Amino acid sequence: MNLWLNRLTHDVPADLKDPVQLACFELDSAGISAELKEDASMGDAYRIDPQQNGVFLLTGGKTGLLYAAYRLITARLCGERTDVPLSSAPKYALRMINCWDNMDGSVERGYAGRSLFFDNGRIAYDPERMLTLGRLLASAGLNVLCVNNVNVHDPAQRLLEDFLPDLASLADLFRPFGVRLMVSVDFSSPLRHGIPTADPLDDRVRNWWRDTAAHVYAAIPDLAGFLVKADSEGRPGPFSYGRSHADGANMLADALKPWGGYVVWRCFVYNCRQDWRDTKTDRPKAAWEHYAHLDGEFAGNVILQVKHGPFDFQVREPLSPLLLGMKKTLLAMELQLAQEYTGHQIDLYTMMPMWKELFEELPADNIMSVAAVANFGNDENYTGHPLAAVNLYTYGLLAWDPETDAEGAVARWARLTYGFAADQEQALVSLLLSSRRTYEKYTAPLGIGWMITPHDHYGPNPSGYEYDLWGTYHKADRNAVGIDRTHDGTGYLDQYPEDFRWKYADPETCPDLYLLFYHRLPYGFRMKDGRTLIQRIYDDHFEGYDETVAMASVLGTLPFPEPDAAVIRERIDRQLYNAREWRDIINTFFHRLSGVPDAHGRTIYD
Amino acid sequence: MNLWLNRLTHDVPADLKDPVQLACFELDSAGISAELKEDASMGDAYRIDPQQNGVFLLTGGKTGLLYAAYRLITARLCGERTDVPLSSAPKYALRMINCWDNMDGSVERGYAGRSLFFDNGRIAYDPERMLTLGRLLASAGLNVLCVNNVNVHDPAQRLLEDFLPDLASLADLFRPFGVRLMVSVDFSSPLRHGIPTADPLDDRVRNWWRDTAAHVYAAIPDLAGFLVKADSEGRPGPFSYGRSHADGANMLADALKPWGGYVVWRCFVYNCRQDWRDTKTDRPKAAWEHYAHLDGEFAGNVILQVKHGPFDFQVREPLSPLLLGMKKTLLAMELQLAQEYTGHQIDLYTMMPMWKELFEELPADNIMSVAAVANFGNDENYTGHPLAAVNLYTYGLLAWDPETDAEGAVARWARLTYGFAADQEQALVSLLLSSRRTYEKYTAPLGIGWMITPHDHYGPNPSGYEYDLWGTYHKADRNAVGIDRTHDGTGYLDQYPEDFRWKYADPETCPDLYLLFYHRLPYGFRMKDGRTLIQRIYDDHFEGYDETVAMASVLGTLPFPEPDAAVIRERIDRQLYNAREWRDIINTFFHRLSGVPDAHGRTIYD
Repeated sequence: MNLWLNRLTHDVPADLKDPVQLACFELDSAGISAELKEDASMGDAYRIDPQQNGVFLLTGGKTGLLYAAYRLITARLCGERTDVPLSSAPKYALRMINCWDNMDGSVERGYAGRSLFFDNGRIAYDPERMLTLGRLLASAGLNVLCVNNVNVHDPAQRLLEDFLPDLASLADLFRPFGVRLMVSVDFSSPLRHGIPTADPLDDRVRNWWRDTAAHVYAAIPDLAGFLVKADSEGRPGPFSYGRSHADGANMLADALKPWGGYVVWRCFVYNCRQDWRDTKTDRPKAAWEHYAHLDGEFAGNVILQVKHGPFDFQVREPLSPLLLGMKKTLLAMELQLAQEYTGHQIDLYTMMPMWKELFEELPADNIMSVAAVANFGNDENYTGHPLAAVNLYTYGLLAWDPETDAEGAVARWARLTYGFAADQEQALVSLLLSSRRTYEKYTAPLGIGWMITPHDHYGPNPSGYEYDLWGTYHKADRNAVGIDRTHDGTGYLDQYPEDFRWKYADPETCPDLYLLFYHRLPYGFRMKDGRTLIQRIYDDHFEGYDETVAMASVLGTLPFPEPDAAVIRERIDRQLYNAREWRDIINTFFHRLSGVPDAHGRTIYD
Repeated sequence: MNLWLNRLTHDVPADLKDPVQLACFELDSAGISAELKEDASMGDAYRIDPQQNGVFLLTGGKTGLLYAAYRLITARLCGERTDVPLSSAPKYALRMINCWDNMDGSVERGYAGRSLFFDNGRIAYDPERMLTLGRLLASAGLNVLCVNNVNVHDPAQRLLEDFLPDLASLADLFRPFGVRLMVSVDFSSPLRHGIPTADPLDDRVRNWWRDTAAHVYAAIPDLAGFLVKADSEGRPGPFSYGRSHADGANMLADALKPWGGYVVWRCFVYNCRQDWRDTKTDRPKAAWEHYAHLDGEFAGNVILQVKHGPFDFQVREPLSPLLLGMKKTLLAMELQLAQEYTGHQIDLYTMMPMWKELFEELPADNIMSVAAVANFGNDENYTGHPLAAVNLYTYGLLAWDPETDAEGAVARWARLTYGFAADQEQALVSLLLSSRRTYEKYTAPLGIGWMITPHDHYGPNPSGYEYDLWGTYHKADRNAVGIDRTHDGTGYLDQYPEDFRWKYADPETCPDLYLLFYHRLPYGFRMKDGRTLIQRIYDDHFEGYDETVAMASVLGTLPFPEPDAAVIRERIDRQLYNAREWRDIINTFFHRLSGVPDAHGRTIYD
């Protein structure tokens, strides 16, 4: 199964050594005549010049030539015109995929089966699936693959020591696709090697990491670098030694610098043992508080990887203030393809519209890279729900060019994958583009988040996190709901630049869908369209379920091939059940609190 | 560790064959001169006649003589007078312990370590601990031990076939203690033996069970019988074949009758896939609806084992209506020593006061036996919390004589176990007697139940079961809380006799602590003492925590020996944390709903 490359029926040979060879092979197999001209200075960039004789002149770096080849091939498959010159260069240098795969073969927050890379405590994979995955990533323009979970458990803690030869073989497999491996490392590693500390300013520690880096790069010279989750949710980090995260990251950066590697340092640090009674602490403020003051202190090969929102991949969150504020630091924005809070790849949730909203707020030059938590596993179709593959593909297009048009990208994926007739394709594309808003409507309302089943993160539980340790509270009572995060409330909004604050500070002008993220409001609050807040909550939930029914109906008319058709049927049935539970439970929850009946007399269960 | 028999420092030899031998051994070891006169017709009953020469004349059946011996020994240890004649007979023939032990060694709802009887898929035990357990049970007057979980998983499904010799050896070990084994069986067993059905009216099925019983009784001639959980929470049963539970139970009864065995048939049948929107179904009605109409249809060796309340071992439930209504059926009342909903043997919860309340409502002759889910496991102290052993001991006293005085029973346990000075003993006894009410105060209010963490059943979660499939809802909203279970509500109360109904039907006269079990009431409802319902909820919760603080303080003054002292300290600290969470979460939950402040200005967290 080749997903959006299904129509490439020729298999990639395993013995290709570099992207140029692969480009030639792919073009040749697709029956495209091309002349390839390598210009190393162009790197990932490329130019395509159609010649009079039907031959295409492709110019680019090694990887640029490969991207050009896929561009030509997919344009052909999509029936797009190829008779005009074209040049392209990626906006972001590192277009990363983070796999949360554990070496026991499980995938943290994975909804598409087990790991493609690990099983039973060792590196274990199907080489053919690796070639397919490489091709999928390359054709989507993705170029970094971090294979192991940021929560580095044993034996992944020994990945660089005990499993290096196997890791190098895996790197060899992905090299022709222009995909470089990255590895999540455990900050406390020196402790397992006879060094009594992991203090980043201790010379023994610094030397151990330098030696380790040298050793690793001897085996994998193009390793992209190390990914680190430190001092977060129980992971070790520099705080244990009274050092800053700049100290910690710079120490690793020093070790990687000779080899051109990056330290990708995650900024997901917050108090995960918060007392729910504590109203002083507001979790969304945590990342800024931990990192903003360090701006300018990080080495030139340290990238801070910041989750797109200040919480944790909720359906709707504002852009993280860190992404707007750290001008002297290399930043990557972290997205999550895995549908942790967004339907477990059971419910449809096409992310492109959400990402486009993020880039509306984020000056594209603020960041230098993007990363996304993978949504694939060893399910036959790779992504659990066949339609979830749209998120992997369009993430690649967006990582290449954040100005990519959402509808065009989704349509491109649909056309490559299914090649439906035009009206059917349009129906599918419309459905996918609206699926995020539909999911948003039937789940937690207006940016409030977290009304989800604890731990599992699928299905409704309005107060499941309300009295817990995670800092995620809505404090709904009989009069009002939400947390005031403005200057007069927790002060979270003060972390933003002036123009951003201005947009959200006043509930009268704050965009509706962020209203309950920023404000605590009474149920009778008048929305801009004249409806009350409570009526808007009810309306969204009734609409969300109705839209799901309509989606199911549309899906039933589309000629999906098997086995996709059967899986899609099974999943939409589960989504319908889930959407109905969400609708009724959220409406009942707010009805019990507010006592306000639905203005249209629809059923809310007491 | 011999718990309440700690001062018996002599070990029971493993080679004793019958209760009379054991009685002689125990008396002899304790330095008591006695003459034993067996009267088989007396069974468990006994008479103790002190003679002029300091010798006691004991008369009774084999087991009666053993019980007499323990009575004399414990009376001596407690410093009670033994110079007057005394006779005693148990009220209930079967005084049963149900272990929910799985053959993998886990214990369902076990809070005292792993199984004492099983490990790793086989029967595996420490013979010395078996002798201690036998002695503990016999000294408490308990005489039936069902060793395996009522949820009969593989390989326990093959206990009677593949493990019979080991089971017989275990029965041999317990025989001198007057303790007969019982076994939980899987109703669908014939399906695993080449019979295509488990239909209780099918001759092949009936013959298979007859043959199996004959085979089992050849190995264990005094087996007490079979315990069955059928058509409940996923277990197989006669419903699969369109047969009634009388058909199912009577079929097994027929197989056991030649050997004098009982079928103990559990009445825990309800819809565990209820839609929370469904207000017609009221789970407490289920047992009555399933069984009451079968009264008179069960064979003479079928005992219906009925949980004491209509739900599932909540802190406060009314007596099950089945226990009042089935006059033509042998009944056993089922209690739960394991503190599933009552603090996991972390929080103190002495059950005797609860049991006494049940017997106030239950004419003692309505039932012919009692059963209790075990609270012991392979923890060194057997019951996890050393003070939880009081429930095992006093259950035995109550099963012998339901008129046993609560304070006297607890004091007897305390004196045997710790032998404190009088004022310390009194402090401990008072604390234990009040511990259930304290736990009740800080948990779900006034009989409403179920505001507990789902699945795990420890700690507060006010709406954890509110939108789930288990039929356990409180439907608290901004105005009111509770379910109306009177004639005008779900009609549950109609299942009771007239005098019982009369007592609970009117919220003005219904005992406070059952108020929210039977009624849906507004927060402003006036309690009999003039307080509002909401104020009563707040008061109970503040008091519950304060009483826990006081308990901790008292415990700190008592001279517990090690290792008990350390365990008690550790557990009371956890109880303090738990009680504070309960207090604040329940108060906040109701405050957010009602908007009513505490009349005394105490802190309720918004």
